[in-house]
Amino acid sequence: MSELFGGIYARGAVAAAVADAAWLAAMLDVEAALARALHRLGELTAEEAEAVVAACAEGVDPARLETGANASPVVGLANVLRSRAGDAAHRGATSQDVLDTALMLVARRALRPLLADARAASDAAAALARAHRDTPVLARTLLQPALPTSFGLKAAGWMHAIDEAVTGLDAACEAVLAVQMGGPVGHRSPAVAAEVAAELELTDPPLAWHGNRTRPAALAAALGILAGALAKVARDVTLLAQGEVGEVREGGAGGASSSMAHKRNPVASVSVLACAARVPGLVATVLAGMAGEHERAAGAWQAEWGTLTELLRLTGSAAAWARELLEELEVDTERMRENLQGAEPDLGASGELVDRALLAHGAR
Amino acid sequence: MSELFGGIYARGAVAAAVADAAWLAAMLDVEAALARALHRLGELTAEEAEAVVAACAEGVDPARLETGANASPVVGLANVLRSRAGDAAHRGATSQDVLDTALMLVARRALRPLLADARAASDAAAALARAHRDTPVLARTLLQPALPTSFGLKAAGWMHAIDEAVTGLDAACEAVLAVQMGGPVGHRSPAVAAEVAAELELTDPPLAWHGNRTRPAALAAALGILAGALAKVARDVTLLAQGEVGEVREGGAGGASSSMAHKRNPVASVSVLACAARVPGLVATVLAGMAGEHERAAGAWQAEWGTLTELLRLTGSAAAWARELLEELEVDTERMRENLQGAEPDLGASGELVDRALLAHGAR
Amino acid sequence: MSELFGGIYARGAVAAAVADAAWLAAMLDVEAALARALHRLGELTAEEAEAVVAACAEGVDPARLETGANASPVVGLANVLRSRAGDAAHRGATSQDVLDTALMLVARRALRPLLADARAASDAAAALARAHRDTPVLARTLLQPALPTSFGLKAAGWMHAIDEAVTGLDAACEAVLAVQMGGPVGHRSPAVAAEVAAELELTDPPLAWHGNRTRPAALAAALGILAGALAKVARDVTLLAQGEVGEVREGGAGGASSSMAHKRNPVASVSVLACAARVPGLVATVLAGMAGEHERAAGAWQAEWGTLTELLRLTGSAAAWARELLEELEVDTERMRENLQGAEPDLGASGELVDRALLAHGAR
Amino acid sequence: MSELFGGIYARGAVAAAVADAAWLAAMLDVEAALARALHRLGELTAEEAEAVVAACAEGVDPARLETGANASPVVGLANVLRSRAGDAAHRGATSQDVLDTALMLVARRALRPLLADARAASDAAAALARAHRDTPVLARTLLQPALPTSFGLKAAGWMHAIDEAVTGLDAACEAVLAVQMGGPVGHRSPAVAAEVAAELELTDPPLAWHGNRTRPAALAAALGILAGALAKVARDVTLLAQGEVGEVREGGAGGASSSMAHKRNPVASVSVLACAARVPGLVATVLAGMAGEHERAAGAWQAEWGTLTELLRLTGSAAAWARELLEELEVDTERMRENLQGAEPDLGASGELVDRALLAHGAR
Repeated sequence: MSELFGGIYARGAVAAAVADAAWLAAMLDVEAALARALHRLGELTAEEAEAVVAACAEGVDPARLETGANASPVVGLANVLRSRAGDAAHRGATSQDVLDTALMLVARRALRPLLADARAASDAAAALARAHRDTPVLARTLLQPALPTSFGLKAAGWMHAIDEAVTGLDAACEAVLAVQMGGPVGHRSPAVAAEVAAELELTDPPLAWHGNRTRPAALAAALGILAGALAKVARDVTLLAQGEVGEVREGGAGGASSSMAHKRNPVASVSVLACAARVPGLVATVLAGMAGEHERAAGAWQAEWGTLTELLRLTGSAAAWARELLEELEVDTERMRENLQGAEPDLGASGELVDRALLAHGAR
Repeated sequence: MSELFGGIYARGAVAAAVADAAWLAAMLDVEAALARALHRLGELTAEEAEAVVAACAEGVDPARLETGANASPVVGLANVLRSRAGDAAHRGATSQDVLDTALMLVARRALRPLLADARAASDAAAALARAHRDTPVLARTLLQPALPTSFGLKAAGWMHAIDEAVTGLDAACEAVLAVQMGGPVGHRSPAVAAEVAAELELTDPPLAWHGNRTRPAALAAALGILAGALAKVARDVTLLAQGEVGEVREGGAGGASSSMAHKRNPVASVSVLACAARVPGLVATVLAGMAGEHERAAGAWQAEWGTLTELLRLTGSAAAWARELLEELEVDTERMRENLQGAEPDLGASGELVDRALLAHGAR
Repeated sequence: MSELFGGIYARGAVAAAVADAAWLAAMLDVEAALARALHRLGELTAEEAEAVVAACAEGVDPARLETGANASPVVGLANVLRSRAGDAAHRGATSQDVLDTALMLVARRALRPLLADARAASDAAAALARAHRDTPVLARTLLQPALPTSFGLKAAGWMHAIDEAVTGLDAACEAVLAVQMGGPVGHRSPAVAAEVAAELELTDPPLAWHGNRTRPAALAAALGILAGALAKVARDVTLLAQGEVGEVREGGAGGASSSMAHKRNPVASVSVLACAARVPGLVATVLAGMAGEHERAAGAWQAEWGTLTELLRLTGSAAAWARELLEELEVDTERMRENLQGAEPDLGASGELVDRALLAHGAR
Repeated sequence: MSELFGGIYARGAVAAAVADAAWLAAMLDVEAALARALHRLGELTAEEAEAVVAACAEGVDPARLETGANASPVVGLANVLRSRAGDAAHRGATSQDVLDTALMLVARRALRPLLADARAASDAAAALARAHRDTPVLARTLLQPALPTSFGLKAAGWMHAIDEAVTGLDAACEAVLAVQMGGPVGHRSPAVAAEVAAELELTDPPLAWHGNRTRPAALAAALGILAGALAKVARDVTLLAQGEVGEVREGGAGGASSSMAHKRNPVASVSVLACAARVPGLVATVLAGMAGEHERAAGAWQAEWGTLTELLRLTGSAAAWARELLEELEVDTERMRENLQGAEPDLGASGELVDRALLAHGAR
């Protein structure tokens, strides 16, 4: 990941959770879990299994994996492990077993901080909704002045969208995070997959999914929806923070301009939008890759690795930025009232709606 | 919809369910439901409500709607209804209330035949899985010969992927199909939305979702995943049907060539792939549109209408084609065995896995 | 094409130029040109060629083409022509010859009004640049107030971007619009392609391009870039037209709200943005389809037809809308000055730059 | 860039040319060129300019740039340079001047090896076309056996598509690679841009292009088309290399399987396809970002950096892989003849067409 641009694209804890080291750790976890599972099934002796586990614990230098030589890092990984632990290592597994299961582990580990940041962003929006339940603000439709509403209702809308996206991502995880251990062509005894699944606390699906990419696709889609919900908040903040509107401004210290000292740039919103803008194309890539060939796709599968890594990192960064954005947002209620230019506003059922939404938020 | 290309892109019953007439009917259903709801809430008299309902029942000529003049067909629709039923029509509603709720009705009506075709495709794959539980076939990874598997396991993989996608789409519907009736800026009393939701048998969400596009996005994503699962089947069939492989061929009468009389083209697979290839870009469009401006987006919302219509039609067409493809697929078990070029194949746990998958299929 | 949403998505003359009738006319033009070409090459008698030409002149009912039965409308078309003119019709051609060459004719015919509208939009921007060469306006970076610039320079930026995109699209046409007449697998004598190219005033490429999709891809990409340049104008107009900014407003009569009588909606900008938002996903679809199989792709080629039709229609509509938008744009120079909130602005080299840009515009 | 997956995604010399160090070097080149230009224009003394140039020559640690704090690495870069050379550094420039001009330098430097690899791939295809001008092979349409053609014509088709894409990318460079030096809002005297352009051997455009993204978009599109042309070769190779077809196989040493010792995987083709599959979504992202706000976009611009970096790297990797693939491709002419299953094939005008195409290739 670029250090140069990572300040924008790799905020928060997700970037580390999808870095090379995290992928490697996950692959080694899978190999170790497989050895343990095979021991429990009587296919490896205790010594053999322990040797593999120890070989995994040593770690591996990514430079030794020769991913380019085999269009896969797992061939090299298996060779390294076999050189340490003999042919008990990687027994009966195929590259895709290890890589796909590792993907699930990487996703699960990355989703923890990602979802935590998203939930904190939503909590911050909830606090805004609560605090500004009755603060009048101009609603704008098609970017034209419409009617008064409350800023609390605006914030509740952000909160609710994030909550829905988080719920969807949570549900996707539940459905998606499954072991893959079908062996070279998917017909290995399901007992092995079941044991590995138990080891790694992953779901044990009825079939191996080497040729069935609904899992990566559902993960990608759920990330895409969350990125969109976060981008919506950032879009609104950039618009509300315009000089002529002036109803909110970003807190925090940042936002200098290299040429205009008077400027205070909406750095967090811009970063959320930059990350989120990169997401829909990545989701499309994963969806387009579902139509792979036979028992292991020639290209579409290998395209997933970088794409899903980017999807997790960028959505994670968007979540971290959105959290900061919402936690530190400064609201100018006076300016909001000025922009209404007039008589006492009718806020409709805004208050009631905010209460409803906060209730739903509390019950998540 | 093009009649010229519709044979490919608009197979089955979904195309009619997303045509102009269906959209108009849905919009009129919303306007009528609103009138009934307002009557129940005491905001319209019985006569007023009946007049609106009658005005809706008359239907509307789309040419009168002047969509271009207002960037919305609903302004014109409301004018027509008001000319018939006075200002009881469209009372307190905004364009987006009517269009978004109509979108939900259109989606629900289109999803019925779409899901029926997808389930029938999966049932046909299940029948293949059952019939060929123990039929040996060569598995291919990275398009290279790998090891024997059973054709039943291949078919079970198709079936299971479709089932997962259908489950996801079903769940998305459950979560997605909600009324939108927040009025011009979303703060209308929730009692109105609740009544309209009851009328139309849609979910009543805590908040209006004019600025929160998780619903259209989740619908789009679930369609994209189903299209991908169907395309996987078609990809495999085109590969298995190659002259040099010859393990399956499409049934049905079609598939002539305009220049080569000896050819039998895999028309259904090609059509599934053509429809599905158009889907990921459309999903990306919907996701990118989530970051709309304030209480009603200036462009992103209006882009959804055509995009979601296409998404439903193309995925529906892919499902109809995939159903035919799988129901009529001809399997050449002899050729499968020949292509194994050798001794008695070891099918691993194929049979057990097919049974597991069929069990899961039965329990859907 | 939907009449309901066509007011937004199908403005201007391009929609008719890509409709079924236009596609059919183009296919018949190709079949007639082929007959004339074969006559000149001595492969058909004058009578045979005339019979084919007459058969084409009769026109064809799209319902007779049975596109679904063959995953192509040309098989049916050839059958109809053969029933009228015997086997002189479609002699030696394949579906893809006719469809791909027809695509080029459709594109050329659609690009005329499309480019005319885009050029008119640019001319209107040039008029704004000239008229407001020295009109101060606030420049905004990252949606924050930056420094004064001239509105003329803003308009010149719009103009120049459209000009660059038009130049690119013009160049793409020059490079792209070529005959395809290689016969079933691309090895027909190039003499036939040369004659048909001469008939239809298309380029005669060194090779048939059935398996080489750089031409459709270059067309798609150039349309995508123009749509983006037009969307930029619309984005800025929606922002300048915000109530709190108020520096421009759309002319024309439209823009009513169904619920808020006081509103004047930026209908043209919204429509440009709605059309343009749908374009990038379509370009991605065409690019992804380049990796088709062997001598005729199984799915990717068939996906092009609807995708390129949509791309032409949507970009054409965006151009028609952008032209109206720019030709009728109302500029509030007083409000621009007010928003600068202060002393005499320094416009830098704005005037000189506008002159430079107008010179380049004049020399297009 | 991931070391783990870089073997696939970052083959060849382009990866280094788009790495952080290359970006930083380009940014420093721009800052130095600006200082020299300002000296020639009399705006900096010789000492001042030299101090800036020296400050640039020292290099900068990316960790000091605090990209996250400002949503830009240039604010930090300018601060570092000012700390070394006083306020002569970065004089009158804005972040976007430096980043956009650096992008052009990065692109130019990356395109050299990228185009060299693509041309070498095309040359290798030309050699195959020449060697197999009269080698019969079965053409396949819709993945069905069609008619005989020559393998030379197939290879000529690959060659010609790459040549067209390379020509397009070359032309795009010519049109695209321009300086950006308009200052904070684009109205700096064009004399500065002219001098910086001369320093860096970039085009001097009529206007600054901070708000006009046709240049990045044209670059992205041309890369997308090349990636597609390369993927077409790889697609065909994976299909020809199938066990049942066996007409080509990849040379080179690689391609082991982690579980099936007998397999020889088409590593290069798979890698081309994996890289190319990731490209269309990235192109769509750049196109969608063209509609940025006012004088500097809030999100869309910042999304370009990572997206264009990936586009260059992935297309560069695809070119490097395609070159190896084509240079080392092993052709089994006997198997080709066997698969024709019959009498002496009629190759049509294949030979003449190959000659034509090679002539065009030679005249590139």
